Amino acid sequence: MLTKAPHLFDDATGVAAGDSRWSGHTSDNYWAFVGPFGGVTAATMLRGILEHPQRSGDPLALTVNFCAPIAQGPFDLDVRLIKANRSTQHWSVELTQGGAEAATFATAVFAVRRPSWSHQPAQPPKAPPFEAARPYPKGGLAMSWVRQYDFRFVEGEPQFAGAPHAAPASAFSKLWIGDHKPRKIDVLSLMSMSDAFFGRIFHVRNEFVPFGTVSLTTYFHADADDLAAENISQVLAVADAKIFHKSFGDQSGELWSPTGRLLATTTQIAYFKA
Amino acid sequence: MLTKAPHLFDDATGVAAGDSRWSGHTSDNYWAFVGPFGGVTAATMLRGILEHPQRSGDPLALTVNFCAPIAQGPFDLDVRLIKANRSTQHWSVELTQGGAEAATFATAVFAVRRPSWSHQPAQPPKAPPFEAARPYPKGGLAMSWVRQYDFRFVEGEPQFAGAPHAAPASAFSKLWIGDHKPRKIDVLSLMSMSDAFFGRIFHVRNEFVPFGTVSLTTYFHADADDLAAENISQVLAVADAKIFHKSFGDQSGELWSPTGRLLATTTQIAYFKA
Repeated sequence: MLTKAPHLFDDATGVAAGDSRWSGHTSDNYWAFVGPFGGVTAATMLRGILEHPQRSGDPLALTVNFCAPIAQGPFDLDVRLIKANRSTQHWSVELTQGGAEAATFATAVFAVRRPSWSHQPAQPPKAPPFEAARPYPKGGLAMSWVRQYDFRFVEGEPQFAGAPHAAPASAFSKLWIGDHKPRKIDVLSLMSMSDAFFGRIFHVRNEFVPFGTVSLTTYFHADADDLAAENISQVLAVADAKIFHKSFGDQSGELWSPTGRLLATTTQIAYFKA
Repeated sequence: MLTKAPHLFDDATGVAAGDSRWSGHTSDNYWAFVGPFGGVTAATMLRGILEHPQRSGDPLALTVNFCAPIAQGPFDLDVRLIKANRSTQHWSVELTQGGAEAATFATAVFAVRRPSWSHQPAQPPKAPPFEAARPYPKGGLAMSWVRQYDFRFVEGEPQFAGAPHAAPASAFSKLWIGDHKPRKIDVLSLMSMSDAFFGRIFHVRNEFVPFGTVSLTTYFHADADDLAAENISQVLAVADAKIFHKSFGDQSGELWSPTGRLLATTTQIAYFKA
């Protein structure tokens, strides 16, 4: 299912099997404020499970707890199968550097998904097609990870050049997200894109403040066969926030296929200083 | 912050410190289909951290992965502090029985929450007060955990005695939730109540089908001081679903104080057979 052509995303999320641990290396191409872009870290940990010889089925849920900044350089992944049932697997992945305490800790559920009754109460967001939407100008943003994506806002495009808002603006965004160099959407890119929204507080206040995701959970509503059938390179994404209180705020989001299929839902809680 | 009067909920979620592990015992008073009610299991794991001597701050996020059924009887909790920073702690809790593989695996983030700019974009649901709402008649439901709660539906009250719906009904519910014997709301009861919604698929299809939560994530938007100031025994809760596909469906929910403060948000993915 993974694209075979070389792609920066696949380099950035690449892992190598070792005797007892897996290893990887941070990518300067996906750098955020003080460490790697969290979406790529999450996708790397997911890849550690996907490529594990004992893996069975497709990812259903992944939670990543960002415990400490990851430094530029190599890291180790301790990939552990906690429990396997007939059709479900529970995993944990611990990312460490130089034998220190965990920098990132993830748990995941994989499942062999059986045919069933289907129903999608959620309504697809309305939007012009990707091709008709205007690419977001990223000139003012220094973080390298932003350059790896093609964002096309349909609603809630931020104008960070302006002054901070006097009153809080809407936390809602609707946008197309694709890789800057197009890459077929798979579970790895869905995982990364589920963290590819700008911090909600930046939208609400129209300014950058110290910010960092603390915990991120993504559910996958399409398996590998579903994604292969979609055969797409962009998702229509929405994100919103419910509350900012005592230095932490939430975010919830949805990733949709262009044909109106809900591929993934995501939620996160993030630190902010404001 | 915990209530001092004896309460079945505190018995059910009680844990005892051991030399290297904590231990607990399932409660027949909070039993579900094939094991303990997941909310009480989640609250028990949270209590294992709350009462740990190294714990600092209040819970911010808890994710529980339900790996295998828990049998009636004693269990062990392996409570591990993964990483502590100046104001944040990352924990894992592994629940085992008789030295077998994990039955439940949780990760949690705790934080000492600092004052900050505050903003609550989410709008409180409209509802008559708890006292004015009708208690949900639970005569037809055999599970003991249901009897420990006082549910008062404002919208989406299920009528399980009727025939299954020909077309899918709404997945949305709005209801008051309190302990059957009133108990002051704390983070433990919020954790449990965040799993106290009936399975969304039961509402949509108006029938019971084989069902089990696989992964549950709850974010806390109030710390111990905030909850003490609220001094409440019921929350106004809403829950909804976005998709049911290939044997798994999602649920998202919110728990509100009667005064319109968002206390917790929650999301879960659950197995179903239909």
